[in-house]
Order: sequence, then structure tokens, then C-alpha cells
Amino acid sequence: MSDCLFCKIINKTIPAEVVYEDEQVVAFLDINPVNPGHTLVVPKEHKEFFWELGANSCGPVSLVIQKIMNVLVHDLGYEGVNLIQNNGPASGQVIPHVHFHVIPRKSGDGHAHWRGAAYEAGEQAMMAEKIKAVLKF
Amino acid sequence: MSDCLFCKIINKTIPAEVVYEDEQVVAFLDINPVNPGHTLVVPKEHKEFFWELGANSCGPVSLVIQKIMNVLVHDLGYEGVNLIQNNGPASGQVIPHVHFHVIPRKSGDGHAHWRGAAYEAGEQAMMAEKIKAVLKF
Repeated sequence: MSDCLFCKIINKTIPAEVVYEDEQVVAFLDINPVNPGHTLVVPKEHKEFFWELGANSCGPVSLVIQKIMNVLVHDLGYEGVNLIQNNGPASGQVIPHVHFHVIPRKSGDGHAHWRGAAYEAGEQAMMAEKIKAVLKF
Repeated sequence: MSDCLFCKIINKTIPAEVVYEDEQVVAFLDINPVNPGHTLVVPKEHKEFFWELGANSCGPVSLVIQKIMNVLVHDLGYEGVNLIQNNGPASGQVIPHVHFHVIPRKSGDGHAHWRGAAYEAGEQAMMAEKIKAVLKF
């Protein structure tokens, strides 16, 4: 898509520190890393949301994420790694082209996950019923 | 694995609000949701980290994540959705069995992503070289 930042990186009209590329996927460093080595894994097909991706993108994307995680933990000395993928402005998505954040982590680096809270009585079962009623395969 | 909480849910020795199940994957509600409907998508094979999962799990897991996201946004009235997956205690992983958090979101629900910071001059290119030097496909 002509005005999409990540399509411009894919088309080489904007530079990026690309660490891997094949026919379906490109992976490059996030310019504002949570920790150094924070990598974005991006399917080349322009889709806004994860649920729009075809299986021909999901497979290659999963494999690239796995390989990058493996390198960050086993070769670059990190202790852990997060995968984060955001859909829609309400979720924190900024660039409307599907991308997966692969974020290397060390103990005590100061990043904490959002806290959850228990359901009220009966609310959990009701929510599960709502999802099951509309989930179709 | 006999002492794994998620294997016990998979084996039905511990209850959970299961919303979907097939031969490779189970999806159930997180008991402490960030927002109601927060779902865990779990491959049935017992692996600790994402990079240990076989392609026979990655494909079905991706499809289930996509279907759940679609329901949360298009049927349950949420505005966005995050995917979060943690590897290792340093990343916030608590249960050592691969699981994907599918977290429904609304604008103003109060959850913010970790802030990144720009690289020092030359550091980004050096980090990309380090990754490329060891990344093998």
C-alpha cells in the first residue's frame, strides 16, 4: 500500500536494519527498542489485523519469530523474550500493517505486564458462553 | 507433563472455561483477565517456549488466535485486541507451558505499552550485524 510505512520498508523506499527477509516475511529492528535487539517481524502482504492474514503468511511468520527468539536468548545473552502484537488503535497499534514485536528481556529491566483481576461470580461462565455461541470454524 | 497446570487443564483434571478445543489446541478464559474475555490459546504439546513448538502446532494455534480475536472485536464489542506471549521468568512467564494471551481492549481502559528509546549512534547497525551473524534457516 503506497502510504504504508512498512510497505515502504518492504519495497526498500525507506531504509531499515533488516535482519532477515524471504518471499513472505521481513524482519527488522524497531528504531525505538524496549531493549536493544527488539525486532519487528512483518508479513509482506499488506493486512491491517492479524485475523486477516492468510495461512501462507502465518506459517512463515511463526518460523521467523521462533528463529529470532532463539538467537536473542541463545546467542545474544538475553534471559527471556516477549511476543507482542497489537490490533487497532485501542490496543496500541500505531502502524496499520500487521507486525509482531519480538522483545528481548533481562531480569529487572523494569517492564511489568498489565495486571488482571478475578471475574465477579458467574461472569466468567457467562463470558465463555458468549464466545462459544459465536465462534465458528 | 504431570505437574503442569495447563497439561492438567488439557487432561481435564483441573476445570477451566474452555471456549474451543481440537486435537492440537485448547483455548480457555484467563481466570484473572486484563479485560473480560481475555483468553489463553494453548498448544496441547507440552513445550516451555514458543521456539520449541513444531509447525504442526504453530498453524492450528495461529488459526485459533485469529478466530478468537475476530469474535472479541466483531461480536463482543471490543475495539482492539493484543496478542502477548512470554518466554522465561524474565519475560513474565509464570506457567512453563507455551500459551498465547488474547486480550480484548477498549479505548481508555488504562493499559499502556512499554516505552522504547532510540539507539545510540551506530548501536542499531551493530545489533543488526550481531543477529544476522548467528541467524540460521
